[in-house]
Amino acid sequence: MGKMMRVNMSELKVAVEETPKDYLGLGGRGLTSALISKEVPPTCHPLGDKNKLVFAPGSLSGTTAANNSRLSVGLKSPLTGGIKESNAGGTTAFKIGRLGLSAIVVEGINQDGKWRLLHVTKDGGKLVPAEEYRGLKNYPLVKKLQDRFGQKVGILSIGPVGEMKLSTATIASTDTSGFPCRHAGRGGPGAVMGSKGLKAIVIDDTKAPGVSIANPDKFREGAKKFAKAVQDHPVTGQGLKILGTNMLVAPINAAGAYPTRNFREGTFAGVEKVSGEYMHEVITKRGGNPSHAGCTTCIIQCSNVYVDKKGNFITSAFEYETIWANGANLGISDLDSIARIDRLCDDYGIDTMEIGGAIGVAMEAGIRPFGDAKAALELIKEVGKGTPLGRILGSGAWVTGKVFGITRVPVVKRQTMAAYEPRAIHGMGVSYATSPMGADHTAGWVVNTNLAGLGGKLDPHKAEGQVDTSRMVQILTAAMDCTGLCTFVNFPVGDIPEGGQGLMEMMSALFGVDMTFDNVVDLGKKVLKIERAFNLAAGLTKADDRLPDFMIEEKIPPHNVSFTVSDTELDRFFEF
Amino acid sequence: MGKMMRVNMSELKVAVEETPKDYLGLGGRGLTSALISKEVPPTCHPLGDKNKLVFAPGSLSGTTAANNSRLSVGLKSPLTGGIKESNAGGTTAFKIGRLGLSAIVVEGINQDGKWRLLHVTKDGGKLVPAEEYRGLKNYPLVKKLQDRFGQKVGILSIGPVGEMKLSTATIASTDTSGFPCRHAGRGGPGAVMGSKGLKAIVIDDTKAPGVSIANPDKFREGAKKFAKAVQDHPVTGQGLKILGTNMLVAPINAAGAYPTRNFREGTFAGVEKVSGEYMHEVITKRGGNPSHAGCTTCIIQCSNVYVDKKGNFITSAFEYETIWANGANLGISDLDSIARIDRLCDDYGIDTMEIGGAIGVAMEAGIRPFGDAKAALELIKEVGKGTPLGRILGSGAWVTGKVFGITRVPVVKRQTMAAYEPRAIHGMGVSYATSPMGADHTAGWVVNTNLAGLGGKLDPHKAEGQVDTSRMVQILTAAMDCTGLCTFVNFPVGDIPEGGQGLMEMMSALFGVDMTFDNVVDLGKKVLKIERAFNLAAGLTKADDRLPDFMIEEKIPPHNVSFTVSDTELDRFFEF
Repeated sequence: MGKMMRVNMSELKVAVEETPKDYLGLGGRGLTSALISKEVPPTCHPLGDKNKLVFAPGSLSGTTAANNSRLSVGLKSPLTGGIKESNAGGTTAFKIGRLGLSAIVVEGINQDGKWRLLHVTKDGGKLVPAEEYRGLKNYPLVKKLQDRFGQKVGILSIGPVGEMKLSTATIASTDTSGFPCRHAGRGGPGAVMGSKGLKAIVIDDTKAPGVSIANPDKFREGAKKFAKAVQDHPVTGQGLKILGTNMLVAPINAAGAYPTRNFREGTFAGVEKVSGEYMHEVITKRGGNPSHAGCTTCIIQCSNVYVDKKGNFITSAFEYETIWANGANLGISDLDSIARIDRLCDDYGIDTMEIGGAIGVAMEAGIRPFGDAKAALELIKEVGKGTPLGRILGSGAWVTGKVFGITRVPVVKRQTMAAYEPRAIHGMGVSYATSPMGADHTAGWVVNTNLAGLGGKLDPHKAEGQVDTSRMVQILTAAMDCTGLCTFVNFPVGDIPEGGQGLMEMMSALFGVDMTFDNVVDLGKKVLKIERAFNLAAGLTKADDRLPDFMIEEKIPPHNVSFTVSDTELDRFFEF
Repeated sequence: MGKMMRVNMSELKVAVEETPKDYLGLGGRGLTSALISKEVPPTCHPLGDKNKLVFAPGSLSGTTAANNSRLSVGLKSPLTGGIKESNAGGTTAFKIGRLGLSAIVVEGINQDGKWRLLHVTKDGGKLVPAEEYRGLKNYPLVKKLQDRFGQKVGILSIGPVGEMKLSTATIASTDTSGFPCRHAGRGGPGAVMGSKGLKAIVIDDTKAPGVSIANPDKFREGAKKFAKAVQDHPVTGQGLKILGTNMLVAPINAAGAYPTRNFREGTFAGVEKVSGEYMHEVITKRGGNPSHAGCTTCIIQCSNVYVDKKGNFITSAFEYETIWANGANLGISDLDSIARIDRLCDDYGIDTMEIGGAIGVAMEAGIRPFGDAKAALELIKEVGKGTPLGRILGSGAWVTGKVFGITRVPVVKRQTMAAYEPRAIHGMGVSYATSPMGADHTAGWVVNTNLAGLGGKLDPHKAEGQVDTSRMVQILTAAMDCTGLCTFVNFPVGDIPEGGQGLMEMMSALFGVDMTFDNVVDLGKKVLKIERAFNLAAGLTKADDRLPDFMIEEKIPPHNVSFTVSDTELDRFFEF
């Protein structure tokens, strides 16, 4: 992992250099955040030529470790105005890792307004004219690119919404079936890619050298232990395979924490029709695939292939957050419609979570009625077409609230929350408030420490212990986000001794050093501190580490709870 | 000025109380900023029930002092997210002052979604149902209110855009002819009034007690001296009367500082058709009035009545900033079209400056072509109708830039700049960057210290001396904004010894103390520090005290200058 590719869009030059010393040994989020922090002026315009877009596979990406194909995308976010690491699965992290690249760094802005794509092979990178792909949606785009560059390439691409530079724009990453259904979605990375005039990155790892590992034998042993733990854990070995990520619907709804109709209620009347169990039944009955391994080296198979009544493909990687944001959050319980929304979002390159948040706010404003699936689908099409209404929604929930004069806007740092009501799960509120990423569920997923049914010991309706727990989890998560491993391996790593051991052995063998748990904690702290410092320099303050007023003032049914973690408590978060 | 009216929209109660001790002796901006700072939580949602809207006449409003009818409107701004004092002329400050009220404070939010108006008389205030006025534009609205409450009342009102709670929404203040053409425009005060469900405030000062003055004889002498200086100064005694505020077009354009086509150039090819001289000629020829005294006690007469070719009224108070924002800024040189835009904005209740900025950004995005007057007029109508495109524009230039993916957005703290290109007049750049109000020309007008032709001694293209000068002017302006006097009296007060003396004598006589120049400076400093502290607590930082990237990176013709005041220099501003 000693090389880094620099792609200068202003000068149309690509160069491969030794990875600068400062970034050596860092992978994934650790590398993207370090680089953005060092090389991007914190106050620059996110769509201007000083912003950079960094694609970094994790330290383990491209190896034989199970579930190693998460790609970190780093940038100054047009959505939050702060630093952002958005990540995606699929095949691209693995291939970039195998090519021996620690990162691809895209800099500058095309001066001629013309679109290009980057073709990456073992021999380096080339910028190729791509005007012919202008305006293409992701599915037809990757089809054309696969036909041109080979079926086995991995592709990162933006759809029309990235071209429009809207803050909900994603970067799609093709999965193992070649579908552009895995997305670095949060925070608008697609808008930054669009601002630079880069339509796609095609990654061909044919004859790639592979990841160099200091101690291959030791690595193999660790990898075996690690994989076994992943398979042995009930969540990663069974639950996710059968029900997908949507397995969470039932327990979260039961906890009164399934945000419904723009966070008005914590339970959804139509919950049975959007649950993991129901989805499994539908997919199985119709001949789809409920247990798809979408990411290279995946042994969890949380993904799926969702088909219509006739068995025709609608979408793949149809997940918990998407189903919630465009389901319960909009009062919609028609799974087929939500699947079509997911497909449209994948095609246009729209973050399913942020757009669901935006449509929820628009429904709050009465633009369309809650529960109207057809209207929601049409609104997504407006985003894809770039109509004024579509552009409003495509700019995210915060802008939508501003434009429609709405105060019930469920965002932190202008980013929409996830499918965990922070009043009913206080710990998630702390993570939303304090994560440098804005309201982000993956940065500090403390649901299992809050809900008794999932083994939690904290009172989810009380402040006590929440800040300390969220801090610990956010630190460990930041470290894990450097590895390129799927976030779900946190279950076996945390719960099964051999899982953690296997991971430490792999890391130690990779770098040829003896990694300790303290090293992991130090890494996580370092990453969080880098990100925090960038945000402060960018002009964010503790006033941005707050949930919206309505969550403190309004009690949410069925438990009739408000968010009670004090500002003083929240401000303790960064005391480490 | 010992009483204050509290209007609670949540409880629908109106009470008159003794002015709390903290606010005694403060008027205008000093009072609004002190009250907002003390009573509004800095991080609250600007459209939520914790924000307040404060209407404060100046200390001299309602007296016999010349030009005393400026009304300060205080709030947390939905546009900037910081504290805001927006002010307007007309007749209302004078009437509120005569009623013995130091302020009308509107609190809370109507709970039933119904519109009301506040009727203020010498006997107090009453909330009156106003559903029948819902959706009315300002001109027809004030007509109905004058018919109902009498022709002599002063009226503060919002149009449809205030009802929509858009960030460009103004509060109109009727002028001496009863037209709603004077607006507290900047920062979205109309949106906050709309959020509270208050459509209008009708002020009837019949049999009002008048302002109590400690030493009436001394006051009369000071007022006489002051008025004479106003009449003797070439700007306030002649220039503004003949050419209106638009007298500035020629010198600013000559300095290469007249921002053209979204701040792409500093001179406008069509300048002759939008100049003060040309406007005077047109108005005179058509039988309009080029020298109208729009504000009570005005002896300057900078206002006008602009008529069409047949002599029919189009608009009144047709001013420099409006003509620029919707003229040169959009590449438009058709004065009649700009006048119609002004009328539409007055009617809908839209800040002519912010909307011009927003349309400029939309034209930058290619939504409509620069120079297309008809398109600009139609866009204003879209705002009034609240179409999605209209709502985008009506949310201001910053949101428009975000929604259309544009980086050339001429704002500071999300507020559009005024008709002084900061690269060609560095001092205005410093004021834009540092004023707690966001980019605001009135908060620190240093044009005359920068341009040699207006007596300036600083090099307008250099940083040297700019921060110190802007600081001094901002301090004095903040103090003057407490008096209720027209901003133009700063010319005679600064340039003619008797002007300053007269003012000090009036203030001393009013309060029965001996005011000194040091008192004035202390007051100005105090006001600025209160505002700065609120902004910091609201989450603004020095990163918000910056001009946009493009003004540092792009040189503007004809002088080919960029903005060169360093961040370090800007950060010195608040060292006092």
